[in-house]
Amino acid sequence: MRIALDAMGTDNYPAPDVEGAVLAAREFGCTVVLVGDEQRLKTELAHHNTVNLSIEIVHAPEVINMTDKPQDVVRNKPQSSMHIGMELVENGDCEGFVTCGNTGAAHAIATLGKIRRIRGIHRPALTALVPLRGSPFILADVGANVDCRPEWLVQFATMGSIYAERVMNRQNPRIALLSNGEEETKGNHLIQETIPLLRASGLNFIGNVEPKEMAAGVTDVLICDGFVGNIFAKTLEAMGSNIFSAIRYEVEHSIRAKIGALLMKPAFRRIYKQHDPFEIGGAPLLGVNGVVIIGHGRSNANAVKNAIRQAKLAVEGQIIEAIKEHLAKIAQSTSA
Amino acid sequence: MRIALDAMGTDNYPAPDVEGAVLAAREFGCTVVLVGDEQRLKTELAHHNTVNLSIEIVHAPEVINMTDKPQDVVRNKPQSSMHIGMELVENGDCEGFVTCGNTGAAHAIATLGKIRRIRGIHRPALTALVPLRGSPFILADVGANVDCRPEWLVQFATMGSIYAERVMNRQNPRIALLSNGEEETKGNHLIQETIPLLRASGLNFIGNVEPKEMAAGVTDVLICDGFVGNIFAKTLEAMGSNIFSAIRYEVEHSIRAKIGALLMKPAFRRIYKQHDPFEIGGAPLLGVNGVVIIGHGRSNANAVKNAIRQAKLAVEGQIIEAIKEHLAKIAQSTSA
Repeated sequence: MRIALDAMGTDNYPAPDVEGAVLAAREFGCTVVLVGDEQRLKTELAHHNTVNLSIEIVHAPEVINMTDKPQDVVRNKPQSSMHIGMELVENGDCEGFVTCGNTGAAHAIATLGKIRRIRGIHRPALTALVPLRGSPFILADVGANVDCRPEWLVQFATMGSIYAERVMNRQNPRIALLSNGEEETKGNHLIQETIPLLRASGLNFIGNVEPKEMAAGVTDVLICDGFVGNIFAKTLEAMGSNIFSAIRYEVEHSIRAKIGALLMKPAFRRIYKQHDPFEIGGAPLLGVNGVVIIGHGRSNANAVKNAIRQAKLAVEGQIIEAIKEHLAKIAQSTSA
Repeated sequence: MRIALDAMGTDNYPAPDVEGAVLAAREFGCTVVLVGDEQRLKTELAHHNTVNLSIEIVHAPEVINMTDKPQDVVRNKPQSSMHIGMELVENGDCEGFVTCGNTGAAHAIATLGKIRRIRGIHRPALTALVPLRGSPFILADVGANVDCRPEWLVQFATMGSIYAERVMNRQNPRIALLSNGEEETKGNHLIQETIPLLRASGLNFIGNVEPKEMAAGVTDVLICDGFVGNIFAKTLEAMGSNIFSAIRYEVEHSIRAKIGALLMKPAFRRIYKQHDPFEIGGAPLLGVNGVVIIGHGRSNANAVKNAIRQAKLAVEGQIIEAIKEHLAKIAQSTSA
């Protein structure tokens, strides 16, 4: 298997990206194609033992930064590592693409420039794999589509269900709508209009769930519009880091707490790991015509490695083919 | 000052409600009017030392439960402790009303039954005082209005600003919109349409903020529609309790962690207290023609006491008068 990696992706590129590629090539035995400035990547790669590893470099002279506007990059930086990396998937040279760079840019290039939507998909969904207590669920959309139509949410649910089944090994994945109450009468207009469509969709729709239920593992796929999903995901992260920073503050201001924290260190580490998105590495952009995994800009080498693992699992799970088959089935039943 | 308390409000009514009233009457020197089943309240009150305290009982034969539908209770239970308590405010016998009962019911009765909207207010806002790291901000709306119009959000901001200034002692309160990014170009349609209105409102509008900024104390008033606000507030609570339950799990499964946690107990207690909504007690329903404070159903006596304190502060801050003055000023400038 050949996975293309945007080696100019993370905030500290290319060091974590290249190291992650080395770790992934060693652990998964796949070929990783590093896309980026050839000279820098060669220099970086020389720091690692790559004997018996399959790592290639494809030159890309341009880099997309976190400050680049998504609407501009599609045409303005055609030689970027994102463009060229996605091209490798588009032309069949690689089976998946991974980037820890500018999420909006990756979404824009994949949707409007390279790879493009699967025919029949209204809007590709940006997803997150939320790692609560070690049993992740897939959240869609998390920011690509801030104003949604009900039928888009149904497609997010369909694609999320396919991903949960084929990549996360969930049987008959449970689909829920993120809402302000469990009752069917709760929710805004969008939720109210989406409920009957999901009921009729043939998916395993379990209804509305509130934030407090997510930790209980009640759902495999959590659906919302990108505005709500983005705020939800960021609030989880903010509250987590808020509590951990409050603990750090206490530890710095009390000898007693410091000793206690020392004893609790393994416990804290386990808790941190359970909630650490870097243990998952990245999440798919669902609905484009190829495997695209997007990781966090702050990713370290381990997170990059895990994002490459997601790409590998998505390729093995043949999710693109499964989404296309599903759409073909719907088209058939509609025309019949 | 006379504050009416729904003594059949908390999940474990009337014990926490009555004890909270006793604590409040003692600490704040105000009169608390307990509204509820007279016999039960007399019995409950007999457990407390009420010498020199000003506590009265007003009989209300009906009780609104958490399962009652808001749309039904306005007419179906006219003798409930909520109806009669709000009536005491409506007819001027009391200056504020506090309940820890069914939030939707309290909103419905206040808006459609008793007290009613201030003339000129589109929709009253349900608020929360979010106690992050001990410096709360006011969040509106948190669930009363799931689909909002931009001009409603502007009124929420105006009322929130008045409350922050007069009750929370914030000078020139900072108003922000909860959004998926700080840039002005971020946000859904509602946010995009609200930004220019807030810019023109004369309020101290600081722009969009993301969840991660709230802990930094960047804003005094955080505005969003009730769907987003409800999910945001519940996610904060869910993530907090998720982490604390992960800590408890570790402590139960490791001697080392148990000893560490024992040493960290005072630190954990301080952190818990900083994030504990019960330390604030309740938040105002803004836009109805009287002071109404709504607390959590799970409130203990201390939380009930603190909710009564919020009512007292709101009465002292003359927020109803200030909102009316503000609306009159706008009406004048529009007609001029």
